[in-house]
Amino acid sequence: MFSAQWRLCSLNSTAKFLTINSSKILGLPTSAKMSLKITNAKRIEGLDSNVWIEFTKLAADPSVVNLGQGLPDISPPIYVKEKLSKIAAIDSLNQYTRGFGHPSLVKALACLYEKFYQNQINPNKEILVTVGAYGSLFNAIQGLIDEGDEVIIIMPFYDCYEPMVRMAGATPVFIPLRSVSLISMGDELHSGTSSSALGMDFLQLLAHNYLTFFFSLSYSATFPGMWERTITIGSAGKTFSVTGWKLGWSVGPHHLIKHLQTVQQNTIYTCATPLQEALAQALWIDIKRMDDPECYFNSLPKELEVKRDRMIHLLENLGLKPIVPDGGYFIIADVSLLDADLSGMKDSNEPYDYKFVKWMTKNKKLSAIPVSAFCNTETKLQFEKFVRFCFIKKDSTLDAAEEIIKAWTGQKS
Amino acid sequence: MFSAQWRLCSLNSTAKFLTINSSKILGLPTSAKMSLKITNAKRIEGLDSNVWIEFTKLAADPSVVNLGQGLPDISPPIYVKEKLSKIAAIDSLNQYTRGFGHPSLVKALACLYEKFYQNQINPNKEILVTVGAYGSLFNAIQGLIDEGDEVIIIMPFYDCYEPMVRMAGATPVFIPLRSVSLISMGDELHSGTSSSALGMDFLQLLAHNYLTFFFSLSYSATFPGMWERTITIGSAGKTFSVTGWKLGWSVGPHHLIKHLQTVQQNTIYTCATPLQEALAQALWIDIKRMDDPECYFNSLPKELEVKRDRMIHLLENLGLKPIVPDGGYFIIADVSLLDADLSGMKDSNEPYDYKFVKWMTKNKKLSAIPVSAFCNTETKLQFEKFVRFCFIKKDSTLDAAEEIIKAWTGQKS
Repeated sequence: MFSAQWRLCSLNSTAKFLTINSSKILGLPTSAKMSLKITNAKRIEGLDSNVWIEFTKLAADPSVVNLGQGLPDISPPIYVKEKLSKIAAIDSLNQYTRGFGHPSLVKALACLYEKFYQNQINPNKEILVTVGAYGSLFNAIQGLIDEGDEVIIIMPFYDCYEPMVRMAGATPVFIPLRSVSLISMGDELHSGTSSSALGMDFLQLLAHNYLTFFFSLSYSATFPGMWERTITIGSAGKTFSVTGWKLGWSVGPHHLIKHLQTVQQNTIYTCATPLQEALAQALWIDIKRMDDPECYFNSLPKELEVKRDRMIHLLENLGLKPIVPDGGYFIIADVSLLDADLSGMKDSNEPYDYKFVKWMTKNKKLSAIPVSAFCNTETKLQFEKFVRFCFIKKDSTLDAAEEIIKAWTGQKS
Repeated sequence: MFSAQWRLCSLNSTAKFLTINSSKILGLPTSAKMSLKITNAKRIEGLDSNVWIEFTKLAADPSVVNLGQGLPDISPPIYVKEKLSKIAAIDSLNQYTRGFGHPSLVKALACLYEKFYQNQINPNKEILVTVGAYGSLFNAIQGLIDEGDEVIIIMPFYDCYEPMVRMAGATPVFIPLRSVSLISMGDELHSGTSSSALGMDFLQLLAHNYLTFFFSLSYSATFPGMWERTITIGSAGKTFSVTGWKLGWSVGPHHLIKHLQTVQQNTIYTCATPLQEALAQALWIDIKRMDDPECYFNSLPKELEVKRDRMIHLLENLGLKPIVPDGGYFIIADVSLLDADLSGMKDSNEPYDYKFVKWMTKNKKLSAIPVSAFCNTETKLQFEKFVRFCFIKKDSTLDAAEEIIKAWTGQKS
């Protein structure tokens, strides 16, 4: 057993005598302790499966080339990493900072979004720094959605939307995206043009006639009257290719953001200080050179365009007809064209794309993400032939994918 | 307006066409947009005030000596900062890691707690890495407490317990800690000995006769039969004096931890990778030398003991009778002995300690935290004469506090 001194330093601040009495088995006698079985709270019932946990585990085999999760294996900008290295040495930047966002970071973000919206943004009232974009979504849903509310989710959707809405006790209402060309999907689901059904007209129809607010593309908040009812979410992962920093933000009017702030102060209180300061300093570098081709906001898309074209070419060589995206770093393709023999796959109740990705990971050592993971139960069948490939990968990873596809094509011919 | 290329890199992964329809003002016509007023979800109603936000703002004045928030201004161990500096340069450690905890970190934590519990711990099933201890508390409450449940909270309590329980729709039941000597309070509320009312007998009574589970001191889980119903929470902030890393963890049996994992995957998904890897590497350094006085788990308490004694001496010089804590880094004292003239303080409905701390911050340039912040509304009056002082501060900060107290004493005599 440790000494009192051990306890002195290691006991946690917030883990004291808060005792919890779940009425479920109140009065359990001592002798029954071996059969102790505590159930989950109802709000998380059935929300324990998760496509990322399942497929990331499969792709963890080092012999597998992982084009699944949106996890860049390119180098993040050197100055982003250097900022963090330097900041780690500064004592005060290893301590708590302001709960709703480190002062220097909310200032940098306000400056960035002011350029975008051509409108003044109050860094303390209209911005909230969160644990990734994921954390922003959670704060917004918990802060603004009541039990019994209905939430419109356009399919396919990023998979966490549905369980987050259900955890808030609300009912998701799924609207299929049939008439919109599927230019990009999953992490980057958007049409890219205003001529599609998801263009301005459609968004305005939704916004002004049915909705009180919505989570948006960066440009949605610029539509007339939309700032007041839009929460725009961004992240360090997408901005600087550092997904592991888990820093995100919500930008919007104070009358919305203040409710997200209340959720934050009762869930995680604040985000990591050294990462916030490093992100702020890195943002200033690129905010000051936004017209320069060297600016990461300009150079990354150029780099991605080359990778996208290479991946399109590879998939076409395999006999697929991938949908060419205008944005993001994912490509989807109908894999049923490959006529893979999936008869050996165990779980016959799984959608086709789940079986296909598991088959491809096992037999071809190439992984991807099944698109039906981004649909609700009723519509999985509409999308089960599609698989999503991530192309924000260094050349050696794409080389390895090319080798696999060449061998696969050779076997076929 | 930005180009499509800008959007290509900056649009966030999870912020797409998730549209939210709060039924509250469904059908709002376009012309009504100026009067748009969206209310918070009911679960956060009345949970927006927070002692840290209020008093941290007051203490932000650089001329104030801040003995309020439990924010160390001593240097964290040099190797902790160096690990983070080095890891920041490694590309792969800036990307997403396992959602329930970075593999190397859960392994280090399992090893540490195995030494403590003298029992095997499964790193993947019995440990969850969270956004600080605060995040562990939130996950546990959301994962295990249902609406309508009752939750026993022993007063005084760390302030977030009450709003977190209310956010889960449960009812806090407050038990006063009258008969237990108040050795340390707030962040470090515990009796330190097993002879008090909060010793083994009391805990076992609670545990076996009334409770299904509880959040605990590290040693509570070592009582017979208690592992199965205890979640032990710790943090990097308390272990290595890096509160700004916002890394915490829950340790417990899988039948409890799995529900906290489900909450995590639907709230923030995963914690920052570089901080987790740095924490793991730093933990290994000290796990390997736990019998060595140089081990931070041994050297920090020694360092704190000196600071505690100095602070006790200072407060006694001022005419107070501080309660000497055996652990933690906070001291409480009855400040009504000082007979401060608070008649000039505005909000006369505030508890005495709130007014006193505001008066002291303004007039003496010394800040602290009012203890009634750690009580429910009905019992604030019982504790309103107590104020909490934090002493995990470097010598120059304690010197500055000493100067203030000397001048104050001089004025009095």
